[in-house]
Amino acid sequence: MEISARNNLKGKVKEIVLGAVNAEIVIELPGGSEITSIITKSSADRLGIEVGKEVYAIVKASNVIVATD
Amino acid sequence: MEISARNNLKGKVKEIVLGAVNAEIVIELPGGSEITSIITKSSADRLGIEVGKEVYAIVKASNVIVATD
Amino acid sequence: MEISARNNLKGKVKEIVLGAVNAEIVIELPGGSEITSIITKSSADRLGIEVGKEVYAIVKASNVIVATD
Amino acid sequence: MEISARNNLKGKVKEIVLGAVNAEIVIELPGGSEITSIITKSSADRLGIEVGKEVYAIVKASNVIVATD
Amino acid sequence: MEISARNNLKGKVKEIVLGAVNAEIVIELPGGSEITSIITKSSADRLGIEVGKEVYAIVKASNVIVATD
Amino acid sequence: MEISARNNLKGKVKEIVLGAVNAEIVIELPGGSEITSIITKSSADRLGIEVGKEVYAIVKASNVIVATD
Repeated sequence: MEISARNNLKGKVKEIVLGAVNAEIVIELPGGSEITSIITKSSADRLGIEVGKEVYAIVKASNVIVATD
Repeated sequence: MEISARNNLKGKVKEIVLGAVNAEIVIELPGGSEITSIITKSSADRLGIEVGKEVYAIVKASNVIVATD
Repeated sequence: MEISARNNLKGKVKEIVLGAVNAEIVIELPGGSEITSIITKSSADRLGIEVGKEVYAIVKASNVIVATD
Repeated sequence: MEISARNNLKGKVKEIVLGAVNAEIVIELPGGSEITSIITKSSADRLGIEVGKEVYAIVKASNVIVATD
Repeated sequence: MEISARNNLKGKVKEIVLGAVNAEIVIELPGGSEITSIITKSSADRLGIEVGKEVYAIVKASNVIVATD
Repeated sequence: MEISARNNLKGKVKEIVLGAVNAEIVIELPGGSEITSIITKSSADRLGIEVGKEVYAIVKASNVIVATD
């Protein structure tokens, strides 16, 4: 599947925090940056998310805010 | 200013593509990953965005989709 | 590619409206409902979007508002 | 009330999954496609959401990603 | 129409900036705060948006970031 | 920190509702309008959110829907 979203960052699952319904997935990118996603636990199960797994973090460019110091 | 968003990725502006109203800002993260943001040109001007500038890409964790191969 | 987003609706491209930077893609679902997406023209080109093509409309469940009459 | 969002899909509530704070509302569209929304339980109560009720799924076009096989 | 979104702020249109495809709508809230929306020009036309008109700014609570000084 | 998001509304925390993982933060704006944000409890802790505290509600203009009566 090819997607229109501009941001499709490859990384590795570093940590999973499970809530009642949702799961926080912390993804480590190649240079050490981390990106966190909140998805439902059922989606995490369906995708077989586990620590160390290679995944992609997908974000529409219109959902990215830019900030400066 | 401190923000609630979990994702606050430091990087450098690599490329700026100007449209009529919007600007695409391509940000390079430390390990070479890139994250693209679409903001208004007036916001880009106000922040003084230019190639090479250090910026942050801010994304709410609920706007990040996870994908697997 | 498998994705975490709960909404992954299969349909056919019914109409494409091109702006300067963005493209509006109108997707017709099986029962006649339509869902419109705004993506960049470069993404539309990369995906080879054209009228009649089978595509998926992907939306995070947290971005769907519910309304009643 | 009239809204600016391009996507305003009429359907019927097919399933409701209640969490601690949030509710997942699965909406069936005319041709059998399903669209899921996550809203707070208090919003679901306020709207009187129940299985079989006619509702609308509202999504901004800028929050719809397009994918191809 | 009743909607699930928690934020439904009543205000008056203070300014409209037209682009090629989109329109920026600046809405003034009772106490002088302003909230800006970007919608398509066709949506703005359909809703009859004009300066001085009473409108609502609708935002899902999950799209609001909190910041502190 | 300066941010690209057009909406950066100053207000005071009026109410905090804690869930298992998330917190609902109700912010009162100068004229009495309220805007609600859902963030993680860990973010609320990190920012020291408490009733009466001055905060900012940040929203990308592309996430604001406009409605009329």
